[in-house]
Amino acid sequence: MKKSFGAKTLVFPTPVWVVCTYDREGRPNAMSAAWGGICCSQPPCLAVSLRKATYTYGNIVARKAFTINVPSEIHARQADYFGMVSGKNVDKFSAAELTPIRSSIVDAPFIEEFPLVVECRLLHSIEIGLHTQFVGEILDVKAEDSVFDEKGYVDIEKVRPILFEPEINTYHGVGKLLGRAFSMGKEIRGKSPR
Amino acid sequence: MKKSFGAKTLVFPTPVWVVCTYDREGRPNAMSAAWGGICCSQPPCLAVSLRKATYTYGNIVARKAFTINVPSEIHARQADYFGMVSGKNVDKFSAAELTPIRSSIVDAPFIEEFPLVVECRLLHSIEIGLHTQFVGEILDVKAEDSVFDEKGYVDIEKVRPILFEPEINTYHGVGKLLGRAFSMGKEIRGKSPR
Repeated sequence: MKKSFGAKTLVFPTPVWVVCTYDREGRPNAMSAAWGGICCSQPPCLAVSLRKATYTYGNIVARKAFTINVPSEIHARQADYFGMVSGKNVDKFSAAELTPIRSSIVDAPFIEEFPLVVECRLLHSIEIGLHTQFVGEILDVKAEDSVFDEKGYVDIEKVRPILFEPEINTYHGVGKLLGRAFSMGKEIRGKSPR
Repeated sequence: MKKSFGAKTLVFPTPVWVVCTYDREGRPNAMSAAWGGICCSQPPCLAVSLRKATYTYGNIVARKAFTINVPSEIHARQADYFGMVSGKNVDKFSAAELTPIRSSIVDAPFIEEFPLVVECRLLHSIEIGLHTQFVGEILDVKAEDSVFDEKGYVDIEKVRPILFEPEINTYHGVGKLLGRAFSMGKEIRGKSPR
């Protein structure tokens, strides 16, 4: 039996991403965002939604670029901090003891200590309501050596990304391997009537 | 030391969602999608991106509505199947032994057996490239009694949603609680220079 919860942003899973930008003076900033996802395979794009009131909003509009930085579980405190204060008056990198590295590809910094970063140039800005959705074309993905598996792929169990739970506001890790995609469903496909 | 992987859709976490629609004849269909996320708080909206080649694409364009159905770990096989075949010629609900329920709010069905469903009316269609992004306004969220916590909130550890790993194509569960959002970062904020 299903119970109705009304019109709200309650869905699982949602990510914990840190959006990094430069402001007009070239100062690096970082903010956390959970309203986002991949939105196109070709060109590879992701979307992240921000309120106009954020410092990052103005930075993206001015610089036409941002990076998405995927924190590992050990960075949960820092990622949470990045979502609590504005970069208008604070050097959040310094407070969080993290290092901004200038991207050689887009006009934005990325976080040296985070295991996975995605460098984006702004492709579209879509006004939806309280949030503006920024669609970024992914120009490069960079990952730390330490998160590769034995075949050289980025291993989610080594990255250990964080999930945001938008209902009661908690963070969760990634759990066990359930199976292979485009494979587990073959049994059902095999017996399906055509 | 970071290694470059080039321009690709590699970021964590990404969801496993099942998009349900009616076709022009009123037949229910279900497909899996991982390219999506929440994109606005007010009005509450989510985005999901589909290729024009999918049967669901035409259904959403025709019906201006869809539901996002969050599978639990026990539905991983069925969710994978929904991503493997087209509903053009197959009754995927019947093959997967799942039940489509007509939404009373939007012109789309949802999956009775899945723990969490989000009912959306189409708000925007945005052509990005290979994928079209559909922005849906969330009109209601429904959850099974069995996934509430003791306070009546939807409990992610009871929903047990699935993550899609887009690099090596695996499914993963949700792991342990890491902490509370808007709380873990207070320690850093407290010592931050103003």
